[in-house]
Amino acid sequence: MKINDKFFMKLAIDEAWKYQFLTYPNPSVGCVIVKGDSEILSIEAHKQAGQAHAEVNALKTAFLKYHPNDVIKTLNDSFDIHDYLKRKHNDFFNDCTIYVTLEPCNHVGKTPSCAQLLSELKPKRVVIAHEDINKEAKGGLETLEKASVKCELGCMKKEAYELLYPFIKWNSGSFIFYKMAQTINGTIDGGKISSNHALAYVHALRDRIDLLVIGGNTVRVDKPILDARHVIGRAPNVMIYSKRKIFDKDIPLFKVPNREVVISNDLFKLLDYKFVMIEGGYNLLDKLKEKVDFLVLIVTPKMRAGLNIENNMDIDFEIIHENFIGKDKLIYLKRK
Amino acid sequence: MKINDKFFMKLAIDEAWKYQFLTYPNPSVGCVIVKGDSEILSIEAHKQAGQAHAEVNALKTAFLKYHPNDVIKTLNDSFDIHDYLKRKHNDFFNDCTIYVTLEPCNHVGKTPSCAQLLSELKPKRVVIAHEDINKEAKGGLETLEKASVKCELGCMKKEAYELLYPFIKWNSGSFIFYKMAQTINGTIDGGKISSNHALAYVHALRDRIDLLVIGGNTVRVDKPILDARHVIGRAPNVMIYSKRKIFDKDIPLFKVPNREVVISNDLFKLLDYKFVMIEGGYNLLDKLKEKVDFLVLIVTPKMRAGLNIENNMDIDFEIIHENFIGKDKLIYLKRK
Ligand SMILES: [Zn+2]
Ligand SMILES: [Zn+2]
Repeated sequence: MKINDKFFMKLAIDEAWKYQFLTYPNPSVGCVIVKGDSEILSIEAHKQAGQAHAEVNALKTAFLKYHPNDVIKTLNDSFDIHDYLKRKHNDFFNDCTIYVTLEPCNHVGKTPSCAQLLSELKPKRVVIAHEDINKEAKGGLETLEKASVKCELGCMKKEAYELLYPFIKWNSGSFIFYKMAQTINGTIDGGKISSNHALAYVHALRDRIDLLVIGGNTVRVDKPILDARHVIGRAPNVMIYSKRKIFDKDIPLFKVPNREVVISNDLFKLLDYKFVMIEGGYNLLDKLKEKVDFLVLIVTPKMRAGLNIENNMDIDFEIIHENFIGKDKLIYLKRK
Repeated sequence: MKINDKFFMKLAIDEAWKYQFLTYPNPSVGCVIVKGDSEILSIEAHKQAGQAHAEVNALKTAFLKYHPNDVIKTLNDSFDIHDYLKRKHNDFFNDCTIYVTLEPCNHVGKTPSCAQLLSELKPKRVVIAHEDINKEAKGGLETLEKASVKCELGCMKKEAYELLYPFIKWNSGSFIFYKMAQTINGTIDGGKISSNHALAYVHALRDRIDLLVIGGNTVRVDKPILDARHVIGRAPNVMIYSKRKIFDKDIPLFKVPNREVVISNDLFKLLDYKFVMIEGGYNLLDKLKEKVDFLVLIVTPKMRAGLNIENNMDIDFEIIHENFIGKDKLIYLKRK
């Protein structure tokens, strides 16, 4: 395997995917720092809105690699880390290459500007996979080049685009993904998600999204609660996708405090929300597939009898990414 | 992500999996060389029996990283590379850690002993995931320690065991894997393997195995040729698993020169072969599952109607590994 820019950028992209969706409304971003030609100092990501950007996490970890007991270890606030590195870097990063999946941010908001910080640290090179598309944050590359930092744009751009895609949609309207749990042979009934890992992940998603969509039939049959208790998270607002508007109000999902429930079959309503998760099976997927940006499959490695498709369903996908989630698979697909 | 022994060993294991089965009768082995603490010089694998071992490929690539125009570039024969490195290493590897998925070999056969070579190169450390199980080749760790090279055994041993598993079975009897191509929702009929990549891979496997097993029904219906023409490889011998012994001898598979075809439903016959691939669908899998070491699934990211299971089939797997094969997935599963 060749150890080159693509190799390091792939590490950054894979790291970022671990926090895909969880950074909402921020983009999922990864950063790798390499000293000299191939001395790998850090592989980090942005983990949650309000927390440090990927570059800041990676700079801190890289600095600690050479200064393991430095006081930077105790700093967590982005402004503090920026400030500290600006004063104490002592040219440490001059022979480093910074691989970052997204153009470093150029504005001071909840966190200070990464482009500004990098301009002062003066790394040897900044390799950027994808330019920023956010009006407020963009311009980082220009800032860096003005400071005479060598930049390269476009390394693994296609992969970085897929990583960034939810953010692009959040910025221009809605990002809608469909979550389905299945066995390896595609069956979903009796579809208890196998692992606690997977369950915790779904609850973490529920905690982040603006709206959870679920089919009326599932509500009537499964009587779910649809909260985020496994991560002690916020229960999302719910839209029950149904023509028939009458439901037994004793179904637990109606009793969650501080939750709005809409019952509707008007898909235009989805566009009122930036970040939407639909949970369901093949039937609902077939109905809503035109509206879906990503299909997120949780695949448990079992073979079981059961429903594995709706009649005449015929969809081609591209695999965008995949992770393990405990012993199950998490596969991100996009319709071709 | 932590950059530690496990991180580097994982790179070695993943690289080795790219050549899983293709190294038969040799084990699949990966090797990563790291200078100092985390300067990654090479990620290599053993690719085919008779060719250089993983360590030799990795040592050569690592040396070239610092000496890009060195004459070692022109050497391909293992004995030549061993000999050259012994004479010219100039203590280059003294501050390197060698991560290798399998204990370096200790005997001189088609290639010279890697343990012997490493003893002379004197790296800082040799980190070994799994001990060798081959009587002839083992003892490498002892040789290294006698030469005062620091060794560590057992880093990612479980993962290395799965990687090594086919080799363990080749050494003690038979390794039998079941290859099936399916859509993402588990359907196999009309199961044309989607990509040329996948097709070439299956043909490369056919070129290596000792025996291909196929169901009588498939032979009657599909009338396959079952050769390895896409890689200009050797067509494997075939066992048609069938009670009924009469087949139309005009079916192409019978007309391949230098091929033996056995028609039998005696599974004990499989044990006469060290490396067996079964190609089929759910029906045959259900019949033969007790005999199968790995299920190798080629999954194309499409949803299609069709057969996705046999009645009452109920199997739990563990995912051992997975790769991409073009735009399809290659998933290695083991029954739990
Ligand atoms: Zn930033
Ligand atoms: Zn060897």
